[in-house]
Amino acid sequence: MPQNRRKFIATTAALAAGTAVSANPLINMKSKFPIVHHVFFWLKNPGSVADRDKLIEGVKTLSKIETVKQLHVGIVASTEKRDVVDNSWGVSELMFFSDLAGQATYQDHPIHQEFIKNYSHLWDKVVVYDVSEV
Amino acid sequence: MPQNRRKFIATTAALAAGTAVSANPLINMKSKFPIVHHVFFWLKNPGSVADRDKLIEGVKTLSKIETVKQLHVGIVASTEKRDVVDNSWGVSELMFFSDLAGQATYQDHPIHQEFIKNYSHLWDKVVVYDVSEV
Repeated sequence: MPQNRRKFIATTAALAAGTAVSANPLINMKSKFPIVHHVFFWLKNPGSVADRDKLIEGVKTLSKIETVKQLHVGIVASTEKRDVVDNSWGVSELMFFSDLAGQATYQDHPIHQEFIKNYSHLWDKVVVYDVSEV
Repeated sequence: MPQNRRKFIATTAALAAGTAVSANPLINMKSKFPIVHHVFFWLKNPGSVADRDKLIEGVKTLSKIETVKQLHVGIVASTEKRDVVDNSWGVSELMFFSDLAGQATYQDHPIHQEFIKNYSHLWDKVVVYDVSEV
């Protein structure tokens, strides 16, 4: 087989293998912001939409911190109720950082401290998950 | 004050206000993929790196499902140990969908069913958080 033809087949096979990995070839690439910090807040007054919205407003101030590269604030989605799904919380704060140092900077940042001072009366319980992308 | 000058001041004020909202003006914009599905797996053999890596391999197959718009697979990050941080889990699966229908399609998808069939022997417990961005 001529060298070019062999090379063409190898390249095509590699591309096909790449396609098989994902419907969207980009989503399997390691993120630019591989440290994920996901916080769930349980409200002191779970029935209060006003309290929930106040806390959402507070969480959004955290995007001013320069090491917070992405911020997604959310509430419980109306997906199917299943035993494994925890929908007892009130507000979700999902952040992405470039590295562990960025996450540490966030923890100590005056804007974060101010957030805790001004909004912690609204929550009863917090659970944090810190994830390192692989 | 001349109209142009007034307009310049108004524009500058608006830009300054925009800057005040965030270090990165993009991160406060609502995501294109506002449904977040975050799953934490506790391994049957928490000490087994082989089992953990096998499950990671399994979770990565889920990116082939066309409604999964982003997939971030991860392990516990070595952030500071604090009471609020849950680091007892083994593998994190974080997905973004365009809408609730996309999440429902994922649940019933043959690739997801195949994943459960081939990898569920590795885990002991699963907790799911479904978030709708606000």
